[in-house]
Amino acid sequence: MASRPWLEQYDQSIADDFLAANDLQVGLSHLLGIQLEHFEPGELRASLEVTPDLLTPIGNLHGGTIAALVDHVLGCVLYPHMARKQWAATTEFKLNYLNPVTEGRLVAVARIVNMTRRTAVVQIEVSNGDRLAAVAQGTCMIVDPKPKSEA
Amino acid sequence: MASRPWLEQYDQSIADDFLAANDLQVGLSHLLGIQLEHFEPGELRASLEVTPDLLTPIGNLHGGTIAALVDHVLGCVLYPHMARKQWAATTEFKLNYLNPVTEGRLVAVARIVNMTRRTAVVQIEVSNGDRLAAVAQGTCMIVDPKPKSEA
Amino acid sequence: MASRPWLEQYDQSIADDFLAANDLQVGLSHLLGIQLEHFEPGELRASLEVTPDLLTPIGNLHGGTIAALVDHVLGCVLYPHMARKQWAATTEFKLNYLNPVTEGRLVAVARIVNMTRRTAVVQIEVSNGDRLAAVAQGTCMIVDPKPKSEA
Amino acid sequence: MASRPWLEQYDQSIADDFLAANDLQVGLSHLLGIQLEHFEPGELRASLEVTPDLLTPIGNLHGGTIAALVDHVLGCVLYPHMARKQWAATTEFKLNYLNPVTEGRLVAVARIVNMTRRTAVVQIEVSNGDRLAAVAQGTCMIVDPKPKSEA
Repeated sequence: MASRPWLEQYDQSIADDFLAANDLQVGLSHLLGIQLEHFEPGELRASLEVTPDLLTPIGNLHGGTIAALVDHVLGCVLYPHMARKQWAATTEFKLNYLNPVTEGRLVAVARIVNMTRRTAVVQIEVSNGDRLAAVAQGTCMIVDPKPKSEA
Repeated sequence: MASRPWLEQYDQSIADDFLAANDLQVGLSHLLGIQLEHFEPGELRASLEVTPDLLTPIGNLHGGTIAALVDHVLGCVLYPHMARKQWAATTEFKLNYLNPVTEGRLVAVARIVNMTRRTAVVQIEVSNGDRLAAVAQGTCMIVDPKPKSEA
Repeated sequence: MASRPWLEQYDQSIADDFLAANDLQVGLSHLLGIQLEHFEPGELRASLEVTPDLLTPIGNLHGGTIAALVDHVLGCVLYPHMARKQWAATTEFKLNYLNPVTEGRLVAVARIVNMTRRTAVVQIEVSNGDRLAAVAQGTCMIVDPKPKSEA
Repeated sequence: MASRPWLEQYDQSIADDFLAANDLQVGLSHLLGIQLEHFEPGELRASLEVTPDLLTPIGNLHGGTIAALVDHVLGCVLYPHMARKQWAATTEFKLNYLNPVTEGRLVAVARIVNMTRRTAVVQIEVSNGDRLAAVAQGTCMIVDPKPKSEA
């Protein structure tokens, strides 16, 4: 097992604030009904309900919903490991769709693979019941409160 | 310039059907307000308006919206090059976010890079005014009407 | 844990043939000194020695060596799960470099995330001592002995 | 067309130094016979000869060679746009293989899609004769001469 020094920098109170704000979510995460469920050092679990509103005409969940959930947890998992004033800017990710989804809940688990003061790489598994729906891997930049001109 | 044999198989009537169905869109593409704008052989342009509903608390467009738009055009660009009974299943994509988006329209242009009878690779540029917001690259499987058991 | 039906189709004699052929390797895997070390259902471990020949002028292992190792194990892990006549064609992968490598051995572990009769998704961890050097994720097509014209 | 401010910062003398050093290449680029051919603002063309040494037992070029060429040009294209003391560290890339390669030359063209003072996104097309062999997209960090502890 590789060493994971970032695990020692974890602020549960930030995680608790994110969980408490589930009902206050705005924007895309609200539209999609994303619920943050559980934080622990290096890991976040979140989910959404597969409602008829999110299905394509052929009855499958639109891949874009899975991609949006991936993007959301990719950043959120980092906050308890960052200073309160910083924010996480996703710079890139890649995902593979593995099985179609038609109903039930979509559950994403994000795990930090590597983290420095300025960047982090995260892997995400998205499951639906006992099947994997997608796996993903991406990068965030950790940005200080006053963004530089090149940000 | 590489040869592009798939350009010779293009059915404008399928493209026209997609354009005519803009107002009938359901699911995620309706939630996000995605409008298909223009098809030509090997290419599709689509867009959505950056509404306040899609912004994060810090005022940027949620990356998940961009990812969902990418996922949507990645499949749609292929239909006029396929038989009417087939469908395009996105198997994977990767995107890089380049500049934050706060207002205006988000315009995606999808171009087919390679296409066989069973698979296609597509690149997508997403712009916002005169700036690139994201670039992406992904794969679709082209599936016959009666999906096989392993699909 | 998601169900993994492909684990039940595993032919150790194919794995043994790959291991026995380590000294007969040709082409890129020979140039780079890749050694296949251990197969088990759904998993393959392989490694190479970081020789001075593979370093860049600033003394780091060239990322291309890591990418080549990733590409190699991405396909090889599948063979014991396939029929003897088939072959695995990598269609895409993505990797994130996590830490620079300067000496020692580079060890890759490939794990099958999903596998059907025609396609497989694999994740790879590349480590160097107790540090991760890279993580990767990619797709193979499983091709029958007589490739179709569109292959 | 998106604005490309980085094109105005281009030092042809750095490009010339890279071209002059083709015969002095060490490490992986020497093993693979990579030749840098032409630099212009935002773009680099490089190639290698598909020798029998690089083929797999079934006669195709090993995908790892293509991946290594992609990794190499992804960083090199940036140097004429950077200060002489800086170096480009590839952080991630993704590639799609499009057509098998068996002989001839492999030609990669890398184009800068976005570049700031600290990071750059590059797209690469790899062709073989009149066919595309692969397309790729990746990110580099631009690192100052004295790397920080977290680098």
